Amino acid sequence: VRSAQVFRLTMAHPGDLSELDHLITGGTVRAADVVAIIGKTEGNGGVNDFTRGYFTQTLMALLSRHLKRPAEQLIHEIPCVLSGGTEGVMSPHYSVFCAGEGETTPGATSALAIGTALSEPVPAENVGRRAHVDSVANAVRAAIANAGIERLDDVHFVQVKCPCVTVARAAAAIAAGKTPLTNDPNKSMAYARAAGAFGVAIALDELKPSGFDDASLLGDFSIQSPRASISSGVEVRSNEVIVLGNSPHWSGPLRIAHRPMADALDIGAVVDVLGDLGIAANPQVSADDAARIATVLVKCEPDRRGRIRGNRHTMLDDTDINAQRHIRGAVAGLVAGVIGDGRIFVSGGAEHQGPDGGGLIAVIAYQQKGRA
Amino acid sequence: VRSAQVFRLTMAHPGDLSELDHLITGGTVRAADVVAIIGKTEGNGGVNDFTRGYFTQTLMALLSRHLKRPAEQLIHEIPCVLSGGTEGVMSPHYSVFCAGEGETTPGATSALAIGTALSEPVPAENVGRRAHVDSVANAVRAAIANAGIERLDDVHFVQVKCPCVTVARAAAAIAAGKTPLTNDPNKSMAYARAAGAFGVAIALDELKPSGFDDASLLGDFSIQSPRASISSGVEVRSNEVIVLGNSPHWSGPLRIAHRPMADALDIGAVVDVLGDLGIAANPQVSADDAARIATVLVKCEPDRRGRIRGNRHTMLDDTDINAQRHIRGAVAGLVAGVIGDGRIFVSGGAEHQGPDGGGLIAVIAYQQKGRA
Amino acid sequence: VRSAQVFRLTMAHPGDLSELDHLITGGTVRAADVVAIIGKTEGNGGVNDFTRGYFTQTLMALLSRHLKRPAEQLIHEIPCVLSGGTEGVMSPHYSVFCAGEGETTPGATSALAIGTALSEPVPAENVGRRAHVDSVANAVRAAIANAGIERLDDVHFVQVKCPCVTVARAAAAIAAGKTPLTNDPNKSMAYARAAGAFGVAIALDELKPSGFDDASLLGDFSIQSPRASISSGVEVRSNEVIVLGNSPHWSGPLRIAHRPMADALDIGAVVDVLGDLGIAANPQVSADDAARIATVLVKCEPDRRGRIRGNRHTMLDDTDINAQRHIRGAVAGLVAGVIGDGRIFVSGGAEHQGPDGGGLIAVIAYQQKGRA
Amino acid sequence: VRSAQVFRLTMAHPGDLSELDHLITGGTVRAADVVAIIGKTEGNGGVNDFTRGYFTQTLMALLSRHLKRPAEQLIHEIPCVLSGGTEGVMSPHYSVFCAGEGETTPGATSALAIGTALSEPVPAENVGRRAHVDSVANAVRAAIANAGIERLDDVHFVQVKCPCVTVARAAAAIAAGKTPLTNDPNKSMAYARAAGAFGVAIALDELKPSGFDDASLLGDFSIQSPRASISSGVEVRSNEVIVLGNSPHWSGPLRIAHRPMADALDIGAVVDVLGDLGIAANPQVSADDAARIATVLVKCEPDRRGRIRGNRHTMLDDTDINAQRHIRGAVAGLVAGVIGDGRIFVSGGAEHQGPDGGGLIAVIAYQQKGRA
Repeated sequence: VRSAQVFRLTMAHPGDLSELDHLITGGTVRAADVVAIIGKTEGNGGVNDFTRGYFTQTLMALLSRHLKRPAEQLIHEIPCVLSGGTEGVMSPHYSVFCAGEGETTPGATSALAIGTALSEPVPAENVGRRAHVDSVANAVRAAIANAGIERLDDVHFVQVKCPCVTVARAAAAIAAGKTPLTNDPNKSMAYARAAGAFGVAIALDELKPSGFDDASLLGDFSIQSPRASISSGVEVRSNEVIVLGNSPHWSGPLRIAHRPMADALDIGAVVDVLGDLGIAANPQVSADDAARIATVLVKCEPDRRGRIRGNRHTMLDDTDINAQRHIRGAVAGLVAGVIGDGRIFVSGGAEHQGPDGGGLIAVIAYQQKGRA
Repeated sequence: VRSAQVFRLTMAHPGDLSELDHLITGGTVRAADVVAIIGKTEGNGGVNDFTRGYFTQTLMALLSRHLKRPAEQLIHEIPCVLSGGTEGVMSPHYSVFCAGEGETTPGATSALAIGTALSEPVPAENVGRRAHVDSVANAVRAAIANAGIERLDDVHFVQVKCPCVTVARAAAAIAAGKTPLTNDPNKSMAYARAAGAFGVAIALDELKPSGFDDASLLGDFSIQSPRASISSGVEVRSNEVIVLGNSPHWSGPLRIAHRPMADALDIGAVVDVLGDLGIAANPQVSADDAARIATVLVKCEPDRRGRIRGNRHTMLDDTDINAQRHIRGAVAGLVAGVIGDGRIFVSGGAEHQGPDGGGLIAVIAYQQKGRA
Repeated sequence: VRSAQVFRLTMAHPGDLSELDHLITGGTVRAADVVAIIGKTEGNGGVNDFTRGYFTQTLMALLSRHLKRPAEQLIHEIPCVLSGGTEGVMSPHYSVFCAGEGETTPGATSALAIGTALSEPVPAENVGRRAHVDSVANAVRAAIANAGIERLDDVHFVQVKCPCVTVARAAAAIAAGKTPLTNDPNKSMAYARAAGAFGVAIALDELKPSGFDDASLLGDFSIQSPRASISSGVEVRSNEVIVLGNSPHWSGPLRIAHRPMADALDIGAVVDVLGDLGIAANPQVSADDAARIATVLVKCEPDRRGRIRGNRHTMLDDTDINAQRHIRGAVAGLVAGVIGDGRIFVSGGAEHQGPDGGGLIAVIAYQQKGRA
Repeated sequence: VRSAQVFRLTMAHPGDLSELDHLITGGTVRAADVVAIIGKTEGNGGVNDFTRGYFTQTLMALLSRHLKRPAEQLIHEIPCVLSGGTEGVMSPHYSVFCAGEGETTPGATSALAIGTALSEPVPAENVGRRAHVDSVANAVRAAIANAGIERLDDVHFVQVKCPCVTVARAAAAIAAGKTPLTNDPNKSMAYARAAGAFGVAIALDELKPSGFDDASLLGDFSIQSPRASISSGVEVRSNEVIVLGNSPHWSGPLRIAHRPMADALDIGAVVDVLGDLGIAANPQVSADDAARIATVLVKCEPDRRGRIRGNRHTMLDDTDINAQRHIRGAVAGLVAGVIGDGRIFVSGGAEHQGPDGGGLIAVIAYQQKGRA
């Protein structure tokens, strides 16, 4: 059997991976076991957020040094999903997902399982269209298989990083006689996230291929996958997929659970997902139980109808602060308050990833009280 | 006996007081009963936030029309305390505090009491010094007397708006041979808030006059009043005070309670202050109970040591988003999540107003289930 | 004959119209002669910039007091065009345009002429479409007639404020069976500005009605009017038009000239438009000549191709600072440096108002050395 | 004799040094000749601007690869001075300064000379005090000697990067019984820049050691060096110095000139410094002459008195946009407009580096028409 480990590490700045370096040097982490990274860096989370590139460059140089393999190869093998923006009480941190050999735990039925996959490159003219959805769906299926998860209900969180179109890529496609959906990188990122969510929904049997057409992407928000967490960036050409779930083929003390969040005030979803893992919040998780929490993953979105439970919000009309920064800060304030810890991954851009104006929360925790 | 009423109203923009206009025109509110306003406008909350001035101008013109008295007089009689910045899930709104004749409620022991007072003008060279503290303390005592509150323990929330020094006022003082503490308006605002908090602490017997000197303001953060909520602005010359408490000399269904918040993650304080008023949060206040809540008042502050429960936060080092905007958004996310409502007053700049990195929460609620 | 006057006044904050009040009280300005205002307030220039509403409310209350007429009427008669955002070296100020009786100046051939007009309200479903263009064109023709300008070449600057669609207006139109172009206020503002520019181009015979279709708006940037200055806002329902030109039917010392700006570095256009008015810049306008300048009006736009003269700019990808704030600050730095004065009106959102990535500059100056 | 070369290169993002890589690979640049880098990255220029660290890490890895020496050594030998923030029309770029063997040019009297030096580490308690000033002065003298410049008048630009105090460094100093000037990193950066400017002034005989005391730093703005360009950052422990001047001991086609800028509107200084190098601006530099310009270096500062030539500016009171971002965008708009090129280095934080509210401009140009 295999066994998954998750190390939640902090950083002094986006180029500081000294904690991971120490764990590898000290023998706690085997560099070859690192299969994925999910982290929050202290940028603005927008197009001009270079903290993600800075972290990724530092990470790949570090792994390259330990593995004695070129960084240029590793970057295409190890998904590194970063969300910029540690608004409010959020603390910059990253979770290192490791998969190694495990021992069968007597009596245990299942444990955290991790699978990754990369699709073929997505041509610019496909981004945000059915062909993109199909490409994501195939990669998600491959990652589920890679994780050894057999029941789709056992999948709890699917992180996808989708390529988008830049001005240059769009121009090249047009020169080749193709028609990209848009040449605006920001719009392309939103369409790519929609394609990612649709692809996850199809792979998880939540949506039928005949259940949508191209106009449904960013058009029909009744289509959603509350297990999809999608980001998009100019730095990737392929869809990169991380699947997290529980599987009887894996051993170890970790398990994952998830819940959709109905809106930005849905504290019930936070308490419920903790309850799914046997952790109580009265109203806050105790210090002992907090030490059992390995990672918290949240997606959220400013309600595009301009109201939350009937009251006007001002996130969408603020020319000074980007709406995604607003919503990340607010939802992180709520989730961190329940858990008592600011080391949580809260990411915006949740189109079709849970209810409109809401999102999802997934938590990985140790089954017995232990170290986090 | 007197009776207090609180109307929490919404606005479409900072110049929209149509809801109050309708209440006055419809006879629900007697214009002469309006004694104070506390509200959140959708500005940035900084020096260049003119939504406060816009709202105030509109309010005073409205009351002037109904009362047939000049706006220039009213502005010196009716405290209008506005906090700019409705980050995240906060909804722009204002609470109108009215005091009128009430009927004795059989069996009731006490009810919400309101008192206001204005000090004499504070000379520029006094701002942020002991003379300023004394001036605030005297005005708070006058407001407590005005409210008819006899026991200091019955005071739950003291809102003070303190004058600060502008470049021009500082220059005039220097020309007259005086020495202002600073000629930087932002620093002056912080010192003025400190003086306000010290003044409240003295009036409430939480601090002895011999217990501090000038260097304690913004110097010794062990001195604090968890019932003080201080703002500062160039638009006032006097200290304007609103005292809220409970008193046997007042009747009506409203009561107030408060709790200090230990830090930005202190969900326990939110649940406890609701419990003080007989309202449960499991984990969220029910819709019925939410309708009993008349107003929520919160002060908060980014922890100046750069950490929350040991984890680094990035609020103080963000050149793009002001630290006060960060903390307001985070704490509002938490409080609104517990209450299920974004119409909450969350204000930053909480120096000496509760623990360092924390603040306070006060709630006014109807004792019987009723309208909010 | 008529005579135009322009008073360029400064303000301490967006609610400060004391300089105009003094001019009216002192008899320099006759309140009944005020026909239009164009100004820069210190907001962010975006959807949530309320400095414009605050200034307008204060202005109309002031004129109402002096004219003894309701502000609600005046607001529909006197165009008040404000651009938010005094980035960099710009100084908050407003120009008051007055039209009164003049005396024939012997030997003078023409002088500054002012005309205003308001269109009928524009239904939500027309905004950004041909019907909107036609409505603007008709209003511009009416304003030209109102100004008594007979040759279209004598028109130098046409300021139009166009209505746009809000979420609420779009919903009402849809409920009535209509199809608005968009329900996104920001997009609607851009389409409305395009319609305004097209309307000006048609009224000035720069564009034929058959020369465009609906897809040309924000689609074909070869269509442009270098005399159009368009703003858009939710606060108006009609198109408000101010036409500025030179006419033999007007007397007085003022004249206007304009030049297109090819891009954001086009210092030549600035020097040339001054030259048109007999003012030299070597490299800066002398103090004497600067005193002859009554008003400077500039429109500009971040080049949407992402480059200026081949070099990449970062304005369009900045999540922290809005692109219009960037370009206003840069172009104002250039124009103010040539003129030696920060009291200039520089406004963004210049779609179809001059070359792509460029804009226009218009200057009003006294023909003889005099006061500004 | 030695010979200096300057390569002004562009980048697609802060981690893109491909242009330098190509020049080294292609043999145009010898990696061992690279002595200093001065560049503009597209961050916000504040404490949380990590584009500088990202660029530096990428640069040092690149040079390490070509020189086969550890990056950890190179970073202490090659000053890499980056200013974040390409507001408005500025284009991200970097200038690579190379020093190699040159041939004596017959008839040439002097050419661009480059010298660098690093001081010993500055203890935290010295930052912003006389000992810090002395340390900078000594390093500047060493760099002047390193450049082989004999007359102080031949020094035209002194770039210094000074260490500042972090919360952690201040705490360590206090624990060791020392008293740092401040533990606020932002204040410390300003004091460090002041110390840098004073150190330059002393080394250049513009200021006598007896002409100031500690209170003069950020206190007496009549003390200034219009040849000093100072930055400060937590990433250095020593003062890093780059001296640029003209020397008869150097050959080659490049020369440097500088001028103080009296204020942010001082277009005359821009035209004059170009004139010093035989380049005319009428009103803009011709394309041929623009090709002669190798590098443009500007320091500027928002006037701290709140006015420019008597007119109020709003840079210091803007809670949304940092004042340094405002002034950089404005001054860059002016300088780029005169030169016709956005690849200019404009940096804020110009305390004591030229007149209050002004700054300095230095230009390096080819003496004969050639490539830039």
